[in-house]
Amino acid sequence: MAETSVNNGVNVGALLAAREALKNAPEAAKFTWRASCKWQDGTFSRTKVQGFHGLGEEQKHKAEFSFDADHPEIFASEDRGITPVEYVLIGLASCLTAGVAAVAQNRGIQLRSVEAKVEGSMDIQGILGIDSDVRNGYDDIKVTFKIDADASKKDIEALVAQSQKRSAVYDIVTNPTSVSVQVV
Amino acid sequence: MAETSVNNGVNVGALLAAREALKNAPEAAKFTWRASCKWQDGTFSRTKVQGFHGLGEEQKHKAEFSFDADHPEIFASEDRGITPVEYVLIGLASCLTAGVAAVAQNRGIQLRSVEAKVEGSMDIQGILGIDSDVRNGYDDIKVTFKIDADASKKDIEALVAQSQKRSAVYDIVTNPTSVSVQVV
Repeated sequence: MAETSVNNGVNVGALLAAREALKNAPEAAKFTWRASCKWQDGTFSRTKVQGFHGLGEEQKHKAEFSFDADHPEIFASEDRGITPVEYVLIGLASCLTAGVAAVAQNRGIQLRSVEAKVEGSMDIQGILGIDSDVRNGYDDIKVTFKIDADASKKDIEALVAQSQKRSAVYDIVTNPTSVSVQVV
Repeated sequence: MAETSVNNGVNVGALLAAREALKNAPEAAKFTWRASCKWQDGTFSRTKVQGFHGLGEEQKHKAEFSFDADHPEIFASEDRGITPVEYVLIGLASCLTAGVAAVAQNRGIQLRSVEAKVEGSMDIQGILGIDSDVRNGYDDIKVTFKIDADASKKDIEALVAQSQKRSAVYDIVTNPTSVSVQVV
């Protein structure tokens, strides 16, 4: 458990209490996350996020968040937002980083700074349909953490490993996830 | 090829020219996309996106884009941004939507509106470590398109199917993608 002097801003007590409560109410652990995308023009779209479902009822973020996506000028587009594939990197980086903070709190390790650089390599011969043996998505993603904390290198590496083990986005990217697409 | 009267804002001619050019210069098709995340406090992080590599040299978006991620209040956090798993839904929705516009342009179909609603279901017993048989990520993601276009239902369904076939994020989510994590 956390030493009382350590404060990474994560309420581990509340999370452990939630874990106990959900053990007895597994239906409440079923969440649905949502996003609603509207095409604007060309490859430019705007996606809004606010409502979700969990703990047995409708929930919402304090505000509606809006995200623009587009293709860059070198793809003959207008770069009115980042690309869809970069949104995946944001999800991965932020998920692993939040995990590092939560695990550090639980292990009594004070963090001073955490930076994660994420790089995804992609051969665009896939999406352009030049070579059907080339996949559309990333060949490979590399995450590099630089962490300053009151802990040994070994303990810091263990923090990151535990964050990976519990990361939703790491799981979504590294393992197959079923996606069904329909038109109404 | 596109009828001249159709304009979805996608420069298909330039994309087809790029495809021809890259057939003869496969090294230029190797892209690297990047994101740089800094932990702020608790589960709150900020990720910046600007530079990337492609066409044999360093590239950058017209501006630096910044994205906040956090956990909601019901997870004992402060909801200073959307969750990491919602960023994945934005990537998926915007990738499929851009694809619909590009394929429609190429097929000479005028779009009037395109909306994609994305829902991902997740049992948080996984990330909380309650049940090791429950995965951390989404069990299942549903994408529902509502498209108004000068085309039959069948042709619209074919647009969406072709967009899936060429979508980078659809591939990343539905198939395993290698992620390596290191601490420096």
